[in-house]
Amino acid sequence: MHRTHTCGELTIADLGKEVILSGWVQKSRDLGGMTFIDVRDRYGITQLVFNADDDAELRATARDLGREFVIKVIGTVIERTNKNPKMPTGDIEIKVSRLEVLNAAKLPPFLIEDETDGGDDLRMKYRYLDLRRNPVRSNLVLRHKMAQEIRKYLDSQDFIEVETPYLIKSTPEGARDFVVPSRMNPGEFYALPQSPQTFKQLLMVSGFDRYFQIVKCFRDEDLRADRQPEFTQIDCEMSFIEQEDILNLFEGLTRHMFKTVKGLDIAEFPRMSYDEAMRLYGSDKPDTRFGMEFVDITEIGKGKGFPVFDNADIAIGINAKASASYTRKQLDELTDFIKRPQIGATGMIYMRHNDDGSLKSSVDKFFNEDELKKWSEAFQTEPGDLVLVLAGQNKDKVRKQLNELRLEMGNRLGLRDRNKFAPLWVVDFPLLEWDEETARYHAMHHPFTSPKPEDIAKLDTDPGAVRANAYDLVINGTEIGGGSIRIHNRELQSLMFKHLGFTPEEAQKQFGFLMDAFEYGAPPHGGIAFGFDRLVSIFAGLDTIRDVIAFPKNNSGRDVMIDAPSTIDEKQKEELSIKTTV
Amino acid sequence: MHRTHTCGELTIADLGKEVILSGWVQKSRDLGGMTFIDVRDRYGITQLVFNADDDAELRATARDLGREFVIKVIGTVIERTNKNPKMPTGDIEIKVSRLEVLNAAKLPPFLIEDETDGGDDLRMKYRYLDLRRNPVRSNLVLRHKMAQEIRKYLDSQDFIEVETPYLIKSTPEGARDFVVPSRMNPGEFYALPQSPQTFKQLLMVSGFDRYFQIVKCFRDEDLRADRQPEFTQIDCEMSFIEQEDILNLFEGLTRHMFKTVKGLDIAEFPRMSYDEAMRLYGSDKPDTRFGMEFVDITEIGKGKGFPVFDNADIAIGINAKASASYTRKQLDELTDFIKRPQIGATGMIYMRHNDDGSLKSSVDKFFNEDELKKWSEAFQTEPGDLVLVLAGQNKDKVRKQLNELRLEMGNRLGLRDRNKFAPLWVVDFPLLEWDEETARYHAMHHPFTSPKPEDIAKLDTDPGAVRANAYDLVINGTEIGGGSIRIHNRELQSLMFKHLGFTPEEAQKQFGFLMDAFEYGAPPHGGIAFGFDRLVSIFAGLDTIRDVIAFPKNNSGRDVMIDAPSTIDEKQKEELSIKTTV
Repeated sequence: MHRTHTCGELTIADLGKEVILSGWVQKSRDLGGMTFIDVRDRYGITQLVFNADDDAELRATARDLGREFVIKVIGTVIERTNKNPKMPTGDIEIKVSRLEVLNAAKLPPFLIEDETDGGDDLRMKYRYLDLRRNPVRSNLVLRHKMAQEIRKYLDSQDFIEVETPYLIKSTPEGARDFVVPSRMNPGEFYALPQSPQTFKQLLMVSGFDRYFQIVKCFRDEDLRADRQPEFTQIDCEMSFIEQEDILNLFEGLTRHMFKTVKGLDIAEFPRMSYDEAMRLYGSDKPDTRFGMEFVDITEIGKGKGFPVFDNADIAIGINAKASASYTRKQLDELTDFIKRPQIGATGMIYMRHNDDGSLKSSVDKFFNEDELKKWSEAFQTEPGDLVLVLAGQNKDKVRKQLNELRLEMGNRLGLRDRNKFAPLWVVDFPLLEWDEETARYHAMHHPFTSPKPEDIAKLDTDPGAVRANAYDLVINGTEIGGGSIRIHNRELQSLMFKHLGFTPEEAQKQFGFLMDAFEYGAPPHGGIAFGFDRLVSIFAGLDTIRDVIAFPKNNSGRDVMIDAPSTIDEKQKEELSIKTTV
Repeated sequence: MHRTHTCGELTIADLGKEVILSGWVQKSRDLGGMTFIDVRDRYGITQLVFNADDDAELRATARDLGREFVIKVIGTVIERTNKNPKMPTGDIEIKVSRLEVLNAAKLPPFLIEDETDGGDDLRMKYRYLDLRRNPVRSNLVLRHKMAQEIRKYLDSQDFIEVETPYLIKSTPEGARDFVVPSRMNPGEFYALPQSPQTFKQLLMVSGFDRYFQIVKCFRDEDLRADRQPEFTQIDCEMSFIEQEDILNLFEGLTRHMFKTVKGLDIAEFPRMSYDEAMRLYGSDKPDTRFGMEFVDITEIGKGKGFPVFDNADIAIGINAKASASYTRKQLDELTDFIKRPQIGATGMIYMRHNDDGSLKSSVDKFFNEDELKKWSEAFQTEPGDLVLVLAGQNKDKVRKQLNELRLEMGNRLGLRDRNKFAPLWVVDFPLLEWDEETARYHAMHHPFTSPKPEDIAKLDTDPGAVRANAYDLVINGTEIGGGSIRIHNRELQSLMFKHLGFTPEEAQKQFGFLMDAFEYGAPPHGGIAFGFDRLVSIFAGLDTIRDVIAFPKNNSGRDVMIDAPSTIDEKQKEELSIKTTV
């Protein structure tokens, strides 16, 4: 037998018991004729004591144990003289009578402690050692707990988890597919799913009514930013519902998660239209943990001889509360920030509302105190506030630039508190977005999203103005998920494909099975998908999804621990009827 | 609003309520001036009534509804005159005041009823319609329920579900891999996992202690028999345990499933060594719902001048109880059965124990009544029994042939009752099995399985006799799962690879990451994996796993509904640095 107890459960109530423990040597120290060893497992740490007076040989063996050795000990639970109230087992220690080394360990390449000295690359190569560290392991325990709670909740709401296939069909729409050559069908390929979208819609046609799945999805995209080639989705679909039903149900799920996993009561989620989100925050995923909404001064800025404003189609700004004390240097930093190529603004105008009530701007040459009072009113400034303004010709661009500036100010002012959670539904997304590169409209959500009935007429006259029955859940400025009410009839789906530039033949070849299915009694339906990795990382208070994934890939899509991808045998390629061209 | 209630919930308690229901037209019939329509959803069926006296136009519209039309109705719950006690809603019907057709439906290509007239191919092409049928849908509901119960149970036992990657590394060991060309790493390939084996072992090295995952696995094998290219595994691993712990825990899980899902109390599972299973049943997955164990009469058969027995290394048989009345024709059928090429026996000997007590065999020429009495004693026959005997030179072959005959007799005698469940642990598997084709030993389980410590010495002298710490769970003659205690130290793992014909370089290239991990403090560990599809099909009383999978593939690995696999664009191949050779 390897253990009678784990390393996290013995307390003063167990005094006198003979126990067996197994685990890893966390650390060891000598004190007089004694050696103390902390033995660790997933459940906790227990202190072992070896006394040379009792057994000099045993103590000598214990003294030789290295960090991360796997040991098994038999001993008696005794009371500690030097108690540690921070540890659940801190009142006791084990007086060891027998010690067995189950496995030796080489010196780990980095410290297995909460704060490690290991760099990213080393920790990825030895991911199995990094996973021993508390902060990393606790993320995965959290992930497990969240998955359990999600399943419990959706089961209680009559959802059925159905596994959809991983070997499906490649479609040119959307992101790039990972493909899998078929040995049995030479020259043909499966694709790994970017999402189970069409299958979950077919399940609705089948009458499953409420479907969900926690499922891996795959996108062969360049891995800039915080992306992984494989990621996990909480995928859901419902029949005989309207948008309101879906928002309510998944708000319920999210609040259930906050309550059961984090013990937090979150108020009802506010809702905001896409247009309003863009107008107030310059983003369809605003971080509403703090205010600092955009204020439009295009009109009051004009006609004072300041060419930047006079030539601008838009002049908008934010009130960075209590930041009037910002120095010239700090303001220069902000200007540098917004001038970075990825943001691309040309300049920033500011106005200080000084503590003495006076108003002072970077454009005093054009705006006297009376004019600035109009700014002050527009931004509702108080003494101590700082107004930052951007202007330009392209409204969308300026809004996006100011969004970046707002988030930067949020960071600088400590307003983006990891322990505060601000969920938001963004609704009424546009159905289509114009793509400059391909010079055609793309589906903003996906081609199966339904237009608002009252906007369908505009599909021909003003496609960009057609709104969709689509919605996103945003938490703290991160898009957690999105969904839509789907098209459920063949004619509208065909029309949609036409507007996306498909010929009828292409549409039939790629999605004929779905349009055919719509002719056999398809119910009204809609759904949502949450990014599970993102949701866990938000709950864990992390910036990256990499730390909530057991074995993530690096930015080149490589698993450096197992060294994948790798070359394969020529024989394997022959069987698959493929050749590599490099 | 699409509905106030589902089609399965209204009862006499709801009389007088105005309700909204949505669903599919199951069937419709006219009676006098009335039309009755059964409307169906996932939850049940409710009868609608349209009366021409109340609203002739509405009734006319209702009359025109086709099967599988999707409708929404508003109406009042009234008591039925003609009650149907078999239906939960059989006491009531809905007097409809408004009807809306949500979607029309073409005539389905086959009947959407429990007994359908659709052939296999048609049902696969229109799988979304087949999934509307009760027997198919209920399998998937069962599957969902089982997955939920498995997760609940394992969570209660401190197991953590960890998602392991799908894009991993191809290994030449085991079955054929599906591979995925990497765009970012030209000329290199990922492989889809045949199982998360190495990852779960690394999680044990990481100290996760108890891991599980319900996970898709992939094998590119020829799809004869009841196999799918993608299948689902309940994958588990534990640290600091011995074989006994694993058997107990997963017996607990299985009994929990029988109890919660089927309401059955199953007794403790018997255990049997591999050798005993082969001796008594000629199979490592015996169907123990019925006895009919093998009886060896090699010795008592010899020396009577019957050349088949005299030349045989083995003569074994079964007692088919109460089958003495088998006719010549039936016995000929059995002989034909065992002579089929896939079984390959050359002949069958039989002995009847007649109702009058006399013994009559097909080899009376060589065996008189006194000799046959010895047979009777060996087989413990009673009047009315039938003994069937096979003999030959190759013991393994004859046992396998008799296994087939035993199962056939079990079928004929109705002993393989789908509502009876006989689980069995088969233990002490051989570590290695000789492969004629490659002329080397293969791992019977996999290369990470540990030999029994007392047998390690035999690895060099008699590899075939080395037993493994490996075990299978068998239910009703189907292998539900298997597992082993793993090797957890580098030297033994290297030795194992050597015996499997790997050079040290090959072993390091393929599995270096695992052997390296063993040097940093690997705990003793072991695990098990259950075939989830099989387990569900056993619970559902089905012969094939195809009917417990929402979207299965056919025997050529094709999804005929979506038409996958399919060709891909040349541009896609270029990006992936591959060419097809057909």
